[in-house]
Amino acid sequence: MQKKYLLAPGPTPVPERALADMSLPIVHHRAPEYSVILQEVRDNLKYLFQTKQEVLIFTSSGTGAMEGCVSNLLSAGDHALAVRGGKFGERWFDICKAYSVNVKALDVEWGHTVSPKSIEDALNEDPEIKAVYIQASETSTGVYHPVKEIADIIKKRPNTILVVDAITALGVTNVPQDEWGIDVVVTGSQKALMLPPGLAFASLSEKAWGFVEKSTLPKYYFNFKKEKKSLEKNQNAYTPNVQLIVGLREVLREIKEEGLEKVFKRHANLANAVRIAVQAMGLKLYTADEPSNALTAVWAPEGIDAGKITKLIREKYGITIAGGQDAAKGKIFRIAHLGYAGCFDVITAISALEAVLKELGYKFETGSGLKAAQKALFGE
Amino acid sequence: MQKKYLLAPGPTPVPERALADMSLPIVHHRAPEYSVILQEVRDNLKYLFQTKQEVLIFTSSGTGAMEGCVSNLLSAGDHALAVRGGKFGERWFDICKAYSVNVKALDVEWGHTVSPKSIEDALNEDPEIKAVYIQASETSTGVYHPVKEIADIIKKRPNTILVVDAITALGVTNVPQDEWGIDVVVTGSQKALMLPPGLAFASLSEKAWGFVEKSTLPKYYFNFKKEKKSLEKNQNAYTPNVQLIVGLREVLREIKEEGLEKVFKRHANLANAVRIAVQAMGLKLYTADEPSNALTAVWAPEGIDAGKITKLIREKYGITIAGGQDAAKGKIFRIAHLGYAGCFDVITAISALEAVLKELGYKFETGSGLKAAQKALFGE
Repeated sequence: MQKKYLLAPGPTPVPERALADMSLPIVHHRAPEYSVILQEVRDNLKYLFQTKQEVLIFTSSGTGAMEGCVSNLLSAGDHALAVRGGKFGERWFDICKAYSVNVKALDVEWGHTVSPKSIEDALNEDPEIKAVYIQASETSTGVYHPVKEIADIIKKRPNTILVVDAITALGVTNVPQDEWGIDVVVTGSQKALMLPPGLAFASLSEKAWGFVEKSTLPKYYFNFKKEKKSLEKNQNAYTPNVQLIVGLREVLREIKEEGLEKVFKRHANLANAVRIAVQAMGLKLYTADEPSNALTAVWAPEGIDAGKITKLIREKYGITIAGGQDAAKGKIFRIAHLGYAGCFDVITAISALEAVLKELGYKFETGSGLKAAQKALFGE
Repeated sequence: MQKKYLLAPGPTPVPERALADMSLPIVHHRAPEYSVILQEVRDNLKYLFQTKQEVLIFTSSGTGAMEGCVSNLLSAGDHALAVRGGKFGERWFDICKAYSVNVKALDVEWGHTVSPKSIEDALNEDPEIKAVYIQASETSTGVYHPVKEIADIIKKRPNTILVVDAITALGVTNVPQDEWGIDVVVTGSQKALMLPPGLAFASLSEKAWGFVEKSTLPKYYFNFKKEKKSLEKNQNAYTPNVQLIVGLREVLREIKEEGLEKVFKRHANLANAVRIAVQAMGLKLYTADEPSNALTAVWAPEGIDAGKITKLIREKYGITIAGGQDAAKGKIFRIAHLGYAGCFDVITAISALEAVLKELGYKFETGSGLKAAQKALFGE
């Protein structure tokens, strides 16, 4: 008998009430019952995004909404800047390339935060840059980029917008779209929204909607204007994943009930405990600068392949954490603490990590990680 | 947001696959589909009970099957002995009284194990005793009674049977009915069977069935002969809780897949870790002699009401453990580790216990319980 624990940075565990709701019979997406659900979902998405704008909903993974943020905002040959400090920064770059956007990469060493200054320099160097693409939390490296400071730079420039992939940031850390003046915020269902994968979201500022008007790139399924028009009539443009929308209603209720402030505080506490615990075990954080509160990326101890850690922890203890991707493959592992996560998930993760590292021959004092996590979570 | 953890000695958590099966549409109990389910359940119950006898199934809580073990086995005025070392020993005594059985109590100090010798003495003193009623695991005190040794004494006596309430023992500890020669074994659905409450089970030896033939006490719903006859035709005498029977099919599959030996070993390991952990925190076990592997009863630290511990751990951390009952109320708390329980449930329980005791002013080294549990579960 082996219980399963999902401690990877998405998909994340689904709250029991949402699971139960999603096992109810399928609602028809043109039925009156669905209208009531969608209306509530639309209202609560605005609460989550901290925006007055309509939050667009797509039945796709997060990448679909990312693609839409290129195809709906730019035209072929437009200049763009992609902050490339991890796998998902690369994705922005690749999408731009696929659409013949004249994209420049702002390369950042993996594990590091981009400096707002370097973005300002890039914009000064090429004033034609129409969009800056970035991650708030770069999931592949566990880094949090200084979105607020970057927004401050870009909002002064009438011809440039900031597009933020907040897939592992929204609902984890405070990223108030309207207050900070972020032009586009994108997220997915399977992270802090605590749902299975299958929905993507994008919210655009007035300024960004102006860019949509001028965009000539081809688009059909991820047509932002069409989706907005439909939502304003309380419908989806194409058949939505109604099962996930029903789950979404429930998780948004739970987020609202807890309150954003408490949600952010909870994530900060869990992240803090994991960082302290792994360091108490003598491990080194992969993230050099400001870490994301969604996940903690950790260097595998010298001489131990990180892939062995993730394999053993899954097979022996039923726990799914993530390894490193691309350049970080085999070198790091990533423990998530986002979404439907509480203190005892952190305790479980550290307990299992201790057991696995011990088995792989890493030397440290048994219980040292647990003790540090316990103190961080509950006090001395 | 608060995850809930059920760490009380019943009801216990239900495995996800069983929950999913129980949310399927209700099967009719006379439909062919149900026959297939019941046949599998009957076979696997024999595996669980380690018996060739038919295991009777009642839609009731465990107490219903206990009552049937008096009303079906004895007649008014018959002599009986009830081992009374906890709340559930008292229940045997009270049921006998309710049916005008001439029952004698063998009182055992709470927290202690009955000595087989004292039972032999009682039987010698009153050779008319027809039935000895006992718990294998006394849930109120966390004590395991030496059932094997007691069975050895009773099986030599043709006019006496041993009736064992194994409600928190079956599927936790090895209690092989046929091999040990236990005449009656009773259990319920909400303990090691990992289901919601609502089903009770009883399995009778040939010798016990002989007693049934002579019993003249009134019975109707808990009529053992009637239920046996129905089951042999692969039916239930009265409308069964089909939803739980569907769940039962799944949990019995899971138990069989893991294998009884591994199931017992798992429970022993978890129990051992909890005992070691609480003692490492300076706490004292309530159970003086052999403890049950289903739960661990622990004295609250001096000056701290145990009720405050169970209240705080539930309200603040969403964890349900049990307090003391009757004589032990306010003095002890009980952490269960039975059924759908694994290593990280123990780690979670100890982490929460540390947090709560710290808050209530008990002095101990933070992390000491966790460290001890970690070592016990995973090695140095």
